[in-house]
Amino acid sequence: MREILVIGLGAGDPEYVTVQAVNALNATDVFFVVDKGEEKSGLLALRQEICDRYITGDDYRMVTIPEPPRDRAAEAYTGAVDDWHVRRAELFEAAILEHLPENGRGAFLVWGDPALYDSTLRVIDHILARGAVQFTHRVIPGITSVQALAAQHRLPLNRIGEPVHITTGRRLAAGLPEGLESAVVMLDPNLACAALDDPDLHLYWGAYLGTPDEVLRSGPLLEIVEEVVALKQELRRRHGWIMDTYLVRREQTVSRAGSQG
Amino acid sequence: MREILVIGLGAGDPEYVTVQAVNALNATDVFFVVDKGEEKSGLLALRQEICDRYITGDDYRMVTIPEPPRDRAAEAYTGAVDDWHVRRAELFEAAILEHLPENGRGAFLVWGDPALYDSTLRVIDHILARGAVQFTHRVIPGITSVQALAAQHRLPLNRIGEPVHITTGRRLAAGLPEGLESAVVMLDPNLACAALDDPDLHLYWGAYLGTPDEVLRSGPLLEIVEEVVALKQELRRRHGWIMDTYLVRREQTVSRAGSQG
Repeated sequence: MREILVIGLGAGDPEYVTVQAVNALNATDVFFVVDKGEEKSGLLALRQEICDRYITGDDYRMVTIPEPPRDRAAEAYTGAVDDWHVRRAELFEAAILEHLPENGRGAFLVWGDPALYDSTLRVIDHILARGAVQFTHRVIPGITSVQALAAQHRLPLNRIGEPVHITTGRRLAAGLPEGLESAVVMLDPNLACAALDDPDLHLYWGAYLGTPDEVLRSGPLLEIVEEVVALKQELRRRHGWIMDTYLVRREQTVSRAGSQG
Repeated sequence: MREILVIGLGAGDPEYVTVQAVNALNATDVFFVVDKGEEKSGLLALRQEICDRYITGDDYRMVTIPEPPRDRAAEAYTGAVDDWHVRRAELFEAAILEHLPENGRGAFLVWGDPALYDSTLRVIDHILARGAVQFTHRVIPGITSVQALAAQHRLPLNRIGEPVHITTGRRLAAGLPEGLESAVVMLDPNLACAALDDPDLHLYWGAYLGTPDEVLRSGPLLEIVEEVVALKQELRRRHGWIMDTYLVRREQTVSRAGSQG
């Protein structure tokens, strides 16, 4: 029986890799790598660095799977993403059938954690539902950029008794959800928090978290958000890409002690 | 200048420890360990196993800090917890002053991730605000039980475009928050989800995640919750303690393929 590992590599710092992930990397025969045009982003070099650093043998293969085009302009967002997962499933299935031997162990490498805003597990469910190839699969969790953000700001994600809410820029545009005092925002190219006109909100922002290019900013949202928007544009221009995340939170009292600039 | 590391050890499986945490463990002179009466829980042995497995030298010390009593019956929950943090800060401060040399590196070890439902970072803010001892501090994130739950159920935490909401049993008792289709629940000794009377809810539950005693259950909430409540009572009796977490989610269609029993 084939086995597929879905390995979370963490948020970027090679030291975020877990011992479980190191062992999984070393147990893999064939890595399936999706070509997302990452050459320009530095993520490809970072992934290679992680493999070189932790894989002790050289008895593995890398198979590149092309990325299907995605209709980002579609009106029905969920439907468009789902169609794209089905097309990905067809390509993954073909790659597994062609390159993974009957008793081989394959792996997909995922930044962060496979459970958080990543499509690989959904694509695997599509492949299994199609029924053309059988395999067991296992998930290896990884440190997410949300955790890297909190760690680098030395910030608890929740205040006492409060929930943690992780959402997308698309949803935050409508404001903090009813009854919530804070939100962590991922997948937000345009910094939706810039539209929130609430003087009590505090922003904790980070880009390229866990990498040598890491940049952090924090402060009252209305005071710093214009600078962060400009900084993000400049960083994107300088590096050719950007990956960032942030937490916005209503501060009930004055800024906490030890908050960083 | 003293340095304090707050090290996330992950959710229980020694393989969840990150390379960053291994390096931090080896760079520590003095570990400050809070005595929570964990002898009975097996967590003490697990922590020792992690230290023995990953710390290569023996030039470190363990200092045990007593746990202040906590008024769990207090009506003002947030205030009671905050008072308890202040009392903890006094004990931590005394231990640091007594046992950590001026240029030494101390560490607090935290299950899961220091940013999620853990008080250590808040206690450190209290100590710094008191001003009696100075130090820098760094946070090393760890794999949370939420991530272990998702990995072992091979489940994405978010559906396409949806948020991830992590909350407490105390809050879930009032039902899923308005506008949300799912919630991950921590700190819930009494399984508040048993009171939710919604036939569309699906439960994904796990106890002792990432340890040899791990138990998983999933299925339609109303069909399985009584069994899970009974199972939890039995496991608590058998092991003398329990640590569990779960996700409840409104399923829009039939159960997903590959769901485990």
